[in-house]
Amino acid sequence: MIYLDNAATTKPNDEAVKFALKYTEDYFNPSALYKQGIKLKSFLTEAADYITKTIAPSGYECVFVSCGSEADNTAIFSSAKRGNAVTTSGEHAAVYEPFLALKQREVETRFAALNKDGSVNVEHLLSLVDDKTSFVSVVHVNNETGAINDVNAIAALVKKKAPKTIFHSDGVQAYGKIPFTIGDNIDYYSISAHKIGGMKGTGALIKKKKICLHPLIYGGGQENGMRSGTENVFGIACFYKAAELKYSDVVGNFEKVKGLKKTFLSKLDGVTVISGENASPYIVSLSADGLKGEVLQHILEEKDIIVGTGSACSSRNHYSRVLKECGYSSGVLEGVLRISFASDTTEKEVLTAAEAINSATQNLRKIMK
Amino acid sequence: MIYLDNAATTKPNDEAVKFALKYTEDYFNPSALYKQGIKLKSFLTEAADYITKTIAPSGYECVFVSCGSEADNTAIFSSAKRGNAVTTSGEHAAVYEPFLALKQREVETRFAALNKDGSVNVEHLLSLVDDKTSFVSVVHVNNETGAINDVNAIAALVKKKAPKTIFHSDGVQAYGKIPFTIGDNIDYYSISAHKIGGMKGTGALIKKKKICLHPLIYGGGQENGMRSGTENVFGIACFYKAAELKYSDVVGNFEKVKGLKKTFLSKLDGVTVISGENASPYIVSLSADGLKGEVLQHILEEKDIIVGTGSACSSRNHYSRVLKECGYSSGVLEGVLRISFASDTTEKEVLTAAEAINSATQNLRKIMK
Repeated sequence: MIYLDNAATTKPNDEAVKFALKYTEDYFNPSALYKQGIKLKSFLTEAADYITKTIAPSGYECVFVSCGSEADNTAIFSSAKRGNAVTTSGEHAAVYEPFLALKQREVETRFAALNKDGSVNVEHLLSLVDDKTSFVSVVHVNNETGAINDVNAIAALVKKKAPKTIFHSDGVQAYGKIPFTIGDNIDYYSISAHKIGGMKGTGALIKKKKICLHPLIYGGGQENGMRSGTENVFGIACFYKAAELKYSDVVGNFEKVKGLKKTFLSKLDGVTVISGENASPYIVSLSADGLKGEVLQHILEEKDIIVGTGSACSSRNHYSRVLKECGYSSGVLEGVLRISFASDTTEKEVLTAAEAINSATQNLRKIMK
Repeated sequence: MIYLDNAATTKPNDEAVKFALKYTEDYFNPSALYKQGIKLKSFLTEAADYITKTIAPSGYECVFVSCGSEADNTAIFSSAKRGNAVTTSGEHAAVYEPFLALKQREVETRFAALNKDGSVNVEHLLSLVDDKTSFVSVVHVNNETGAINDVNAIAALVKKKAPKTIFHSDGVQAYGKIPFTIGDNIDYYSISAHKIGGMKGTGALIKKKKICLHPLIYGGGQENGMRSGTENVFGIACFYKAAELKYSDVVGNFEKVKGLKKTFLSKLDGVTVISGENASPYIVSLSADGLKGEVLQHILEEKDIIVGTGSACSSRNHYSRVLKECGYSSGVLEGVLRISFASDTTEKEVLTAAEAINSATQNLRKIMK
């Protein structure tokens, strides 16, 4: 099988799973006051510190949560409490849907337009920010097109215009993939384990320590009172090890995958590439204009080549909300495929996939004539 | 090691972990539209249906969440939106703390008094319910004393007085342990995987289908739109298998643990038993009046006997809030130990523990004279 839907989820890394399985034996409650509990609490702190350091300077901390969606929801509902909140039309549903819910909480919501490649129109975003803006959220890497927003620069511009605004970025498709360090103007940054070889069920909100977080989940006071619930030690251990493996060579992997993307694109024939040149190399969005992406997906599936048709999370909707916002025609929207690589994807897999996509589109076009 | 802190967390069941590990190979995103995704989505439905059936009649459904605390928070913040909300003074922090947070959301909160054993004073609870009560929450099994509240009967009385009230019960310490079926007057029931041999990081909110749930986490629309975030397939698989194993003999286990409790209590000497006779046999709260529970815990730890000193989640507080509400003196509160059994606890372990507790308290009293 050639698996090229790594933006939906990655195969858990064997070494990370093996490492985490120790915690089915070392299974105690990290809040317990006997030595086994204290040791686990200290392990969780070590994991949080490590993960924070992979992406942020000092002054930031890591709050473990159950998924990237929870990280996004936590940041949004904690900070977007008054005035208006600004985001982009290119957000994952985990930001977009809480924004829709903000309307019922008497917070005005504003959505910035996108460029053709799925990146945010920064000028438009800034025009939406004013002295009543309590919160701004801009996705780091668009999960459908791979477009990279320069969130450090955007955050600086936002803070210049509205210094008290809290700035959040959904970094789920960037973490462990794009060489990046959180700059001082970013207050919250969401990440997820299962996009980098960890398990589904673990994510984290990286936050500036001095920002006061209002929890989404109240209770026993875990995560320094910011996220209650017995800690998912297994999932956190797996996340820790998966992050360590990714960050052992995040630049090397980036360059390698950049090469794969180049090879892949050079072989494609007769499809429109939606992803921009400067997009994350891990995600390639393309469209076989006039054909149905889902049909192509199934033809490829028959050949044991697994690709996506947009965000897995919104795959039950007809068209991609985000790509529609980029201004594509319904013909293009209908034919979208999302191919997403992992650092262990091989050149051979990429060549086979490109060939299969070419032949599938050619055959389908013949049939439809 | 003799592990008697099973109310804090249980050792993950080997068979359940082994079963769940298949899903590190079958790792796809359950929202994906190719056959691997569809198969996983169907597996999640099967798991949800099974877990619902272990505890509820038809008309109920299971929403998977990340922990019991999230289940409690989801029910509370979804339904306690106006008027007043009533609960007991014997709730776990996962209900008590969200209730405190309700005050900032302009919902009046009312707390019913406890009986000496930690069960709720039903008369007092009912006196707090009126036509402005939007939500009532009563813990099924008290996590510190094991006191069982007859939540089906209490829910019926509440609904008789205020038919539109939503009734929730935190069943985290009851599920998989106490033979029980949710009655028609209970709208929400919270359960957790890691209390029955599943993994930390998975819980569920069992709910009446016709109740409209306002999500705590918005996004990709997983769990029929009631809880977004990529599903923790591994954790859910482990929960499914652990539940299956528990419900293969929930009555037999209950009777067995009842026997263990009886043996344990019969051997204890010179301590006050806080748990009532009709409490869950899985939890025994006792106090070595005048001694420090934490010191006793450490003496037992030296002998490789692991016990708790109250709720693990609130173990960093000085006194137990719940036991204080039961009306115990500070001398008793200071000396509390919580011993909690699992269905695989042996009679030998229980006898060894009782003897060790007796000798530890006797020695400590001698030193203190």
